[in-house]
Amino acid sequence: MTSRVFNFGAGPAMLPIPVMKKVQEELLNFNGLGVSIVELSHRSKDFQNLVDETNALFRKLTNLPDNYKVLYMHGGAQMQFSAVPLNLIGRSPGKKALYVETGNFAKQAHKEAARYGDINVVASGAETNFDRIPELDAATLDKDAAYLHITSNNTIYGTCWRALPETGDLPLVIDATSDILSRVVDYSKVGIMYASLQKNLGPSGVAMVVIREDLMGHELPETPKLLSYKTAADNNSLTNTVSTFAIYVVKLVLEWLEEQGGVAAIEENNKKKAARLYDVVDRSSFYKGAAHPDHRSIMNVPFHLPSDELTAKFLKEALDHGLYALKGHRAIGGIRASIYNPMPMEGIESLASFMKEFEKGNG
Amino acid sequence: MTSRVFNFGAGPAMLPIPVMKKVQEELLNFNGLGVSIVELSHRSKDFQNLVDETNALFRKLTNLPDNYKVLYMHGGAQMQFSAVPLNLIGRSPGKKALYVETGNFAKQAHKEAARYGDINVVASGAETNFDRIPELDAATLDKDAAYLHITSNNTIYGTCWRALPETGDLPLVIDATSDILSRVVDYSKVGIMYASLQKNLGPSGVAMVVIREDLMGHELPETPKLLSYKTAADNNSLTNTVSTFAIYVVKLVLEWLEEQGGVAAIEENNKKKAARLYDVVDRSSFYKGAAHPDHRSIMNVPFHLPSDELTAKFLKEALDHGLYALKGHRAIGGIRASIYNPMPMEGIESLASFMKEFEKGNG
Repeated sequence: MTSRVFNFGAGPAMLPIPVMKKVQEELLNFNGLGVSIVELSHRSKDFQNLVDETNALFRKLTNLPDNYKVLYMHGGAQMQFSAVPLNLIGRSPGKKALYVETGNFAKQAHKEAARYGDINVVASGAETNFDRIPELDAATLDKDAAYLHITSNNTIYGTCWRALPETGDLPLVIDATSDILSRVVDYSKVGIMYASLQKNLGPSGVAMVVIREDLMGHELPETPKLLSYKTAADNNSLTNTVSTFAIYVVKLVLEWLEEQGGVAAIEENNKKKAARLYDVVDRSSFYKGAAHPDHRSIMNVPFHLPSDELTAKFLKEALDHGLYALKGHRAIGGIRASIYNPMPMEGIESLASFMKEFEKGNG
Repeated sequence: MTSRVFNFGAGPAMLPIPVMKKVQEELLNFNGLGVSIVELSHRSKDFQNLVDETNALFRKLTNLPDNYKVLYMHGGAQMQFSAVPLNLIGRSPGKKALYVETGNFAKQAHKEAARYGDINVVASGAETNFDRIPELDAATLDKDAAYLHITSNNTIYGTCWRALPETGDLPLVIDATSDILSRVVDYSKVGIMYASLQKNLGPSGVAMVVIREDLMGHELPETPKLLSYKTAADNNSLTNTVSTFAIYVVKLVLEWLEEQGGVAAIEENNKKKAARLYDVVDRSSFYKGAAHPDHRSIMNVPFHLPSDELTAKFLKEALDHGLYALKGHRAIGGIRASIYNPMPMEGIESLASFMKEFEKGNG
């Protein structure tokens, strides 16, 4: 049996080892109740406290303004591709919404939204194969639209918005699945931020939704009950039985994040981690970074080798070195190192050394 | 710290101890990969195999006919309250569907369906406060309806359909959340059976959906992508990132069920377990069963004590005896023992003894 590896998978992704050990330790007996967290009623006081504590910790870590709610919604970010227009597009008389297309998930988001209204893709990175965030002149945006949707970090292409667009009164909706809590964000500029849990937050199957209160309560009549933000907020995310296990792990991950010094400290660390890998790429003529240097993600580092054969060899030998799940997404091929908050510098150093060694032997 | 208790909670409910121990044991290292099941990509071969194996085992345990699909859908049974009409009601020219109201969840199901069509509640147990399944003359049902929806077991009121209604060509849709796999079912009579996992199958947040293939592909245009059965089937439930942990636990629970001798064997055992508790109730003038004897559930055993004071005392002393989560649902009060597949006879005997002892001291 292999011992633990460094998991560079894009998601579900690695979680902090101390978190996983704590889950394991108390799996049969949560809070001394004699039952597992998995077996505990979502209506029990212990679980309701857990939800409240998790939200309080998230608010503290993000300095979240008081007029925002934190919700847990079934189905991950892709369910939000439907929920966002269902909840918001009715705010616009012409059911208009604006999307920026910066990759595969951004495209899926606007395709799904088109079911519910008049969608305008105001900028797209398709022409440069999504290697950068396209220019966007926020001043020219249609003020009658219900919202502007962006994907803050693009997992496949390894790009990110370095700064959020200034949209004024037009609510900014952000799919932050692959960079939530990885860097400091001024939430007062955000209308909705949503994220699947399985990269920086916890297990898969659930999305966290951070929403400004005035954006709730505008659902289209066909909105399924469990996709309504208002209903979720009214019930503190417990309209029905949520994934109790997922929220429990989120709480442990947030506690771990606080122990790391909070979001500003983890951002510093994330920048160092990413810089270490980009440095190896930039100093090499063997590796070629996928994203434009000015738009590089600090969460996902995709790069290419000179040939598919060398890529296959790299992946195989990396695995022998305990470096797991480095295969790039099929949309662009090559290698991708996903280095979310839980990836320790030790894993980065191990990958950097391996990259240099591999280049020496094969370059 | 309390050691393990017997958990009579209605859900999330107890899971088999050997299952929980296995989860604990391999939590940091699944299949020798060096990563947790929680950290494993849903696109990895190991996880795709796990889904396939889980489905094969379910098919084997239920003798599921070949023209049925097994799907995992986000959001538990309540998301199916929306998904069922969104997927099926378009089959009826007048968007008609029929519902039988046998309790709280059945009511919520038809209320949600009313968003999408013309809903007819063809029978209701409301008049007798849901203490029995109402009479239904299947011959008189509107053949132009898209389906008939029933709730096979009513968690709160402790009733169940002893036999499924014969609906002929009218597809029968069953919310089997609280009795799936508890007894042998002839699936060829079923159009759709769906169930939240958190009673007989695994962790909360996900529903299993068993669907006859010809019922797929009739979605209303406003159906969110992740609520489409056709899309889920086309992608083997992996349209987006599912709750990987939940499906993993389902597999372990099904393996455990097979070790118990399969569904027929567990049904025998479930009947014995329920009979043991109903016997204590029926021999007593102190306890009073909530459900009509001919309609009693073998999964949930609700009963009343002579007063609220005695109920509170019963709950407190039961907990001291390691008998956990016996409080009845607020809709009917009293005591409820939920005794799903994983509850061992030892737990039943322990509760039965306590009940007799408590009656002696307080009757």
